[in-house]
Amino acid sequence: MARGRFISLEGGEGVGKSTQLAALAQALEGRGLEVVVTREPGGSPGAEAIRKLLLEGEDGRWTLRAEALLFAAARADHIAKTIRPALAEGKWVLSDRFLDSSLAYQGEAGGLGFEAIRDLHRFGSEDFLPDRTLVLRLEGGEGARRAASRDADGADRIGGRPPSYHALVDAGFAKSAEADPDRVRLIDAAGNEATVTARLLYALGDLLP
Amino acid sequence: MARGRFISLEGGEGVGKSTQLAALAQALEGRGLEVVVTREPGGSPGAEAIRKLLLEGEDGRWTLRAEALLFAAARADHIAKTIRPALAEGKWVLSDRFLDSSLAYQGEAGGLGFEAIRDLHRFGSEDFLPDRTLVLRLEGGEGARRAASRDADGADRIGGRPPSYHALVDAGFAKSAEADPDRVRLIDAAGNEATVTARLLYALGDLLP
Repeated sequence: MARGRFISLEGGEGVGKSTQLAALAQALEGRGLEVVVTREPGGSPGAEAIRKLLLEGEDGRWTLRAEALLFAAARADHIAKTIRPALAEGKWVLSDRFLDSSLAYQGEAGGLGFEAIRDLHRFGSEDFLPDRTLVLRLEGGEGARRAASRDADGADRIGGRPPSYHALVDAGFAKSAEADPDRVRLIDAAGNEATVTARLLYALGDLLP
Repeated sequence: MARGRFISLEGGEGVGKSTQLAALAQALEGRGLEVVVTREPGGSPGAEAIRKLLLEGEDGRWTLRAEALLFAAARADHIAKTIRPALAEGKWVLSDRFLDSSLAYQGEAGGLGFEAIRDLHRFGSEDFLPDRTLVLRLEGGEGARRAASRDADGADRIGGRPPSYHALVDAGFAKSAEADPDRVRLIDAAGNEATVTARLLYALGDLLP
């Protein structure tokens, strides 16, 4: 049996990632592939327990560095317990966020440094990478504006951060694409849903059976 | 107010660490010092939550690498939330295990490498180190034999490992002492309790007020 493919879907706030994740999974299933949809942080029992530690409690519960280590630990577990076994069974794995979110949020926007986060991944997961990473993007901070109006009650810690923060996140994703252009593709998230889904599928063209 | 001192107490299984921890705390308090006794993994609310993840569930719940990342995350929290604040208040902090246990157990005995674990500490805790590390040692695997007879029901995962494992742990502690002889002191744990406590105090002589 052929090994499956591992695809991560990334993007800043308000770019329609959840909608596109469901649409992409459906489109891949429509082509006869068996698809496992997963997410980060989380995606395996151990990683979901770490997710709970990361998301519960007050903001600032963890130092930035402790947080980055917890993300890396959760990712190592997610890969070992969920992603690798599914790929070995020939399934396609579609993850809502993965390493490139850590690079963008903790590395670039959080100031810990892109390379430091990359090193944690080399240590924790022996540099296991997606076959393709699709980054949804909207020009000029439009995503962050959408997220801010959606989360007007301020319940979303990340969505409520200033435009300068979201610009750094965006720069982090662009850096991933620059460092690894074959793996990481920037996808325009403007336009109707079906158009965006078609762009995602097009960017997977060489991997599809 | 003078900054307090941070002392870690280390050692393999069955060397009498718990007994000596209590005796040393009492001896330091007897000299008028305010002493905070803490432990790893744990020592702060966040780190204790991570400890629970590390110790609950079946053996092999975590990959070795995920485990090392969790230890490093717990340590970062322990330092930020418990150790640094206590030192700033002039207290002495006495920790039951710290970095050198990770170096010995995960780095040396676990095979992840001494330097890799050292790097995680550089990242997570900006290389914050104890003022002194006291490693209790018994010659020729005597500690592991004591631990094995104490935990004859096999309830202790570490204590039940083969002599070769404990020899590697011991080699790991020796490596710490070799790499940083001013900070890390190897203390003979043979003899009666008061004698061993006196050796520990002697090794702190230059730090005591």
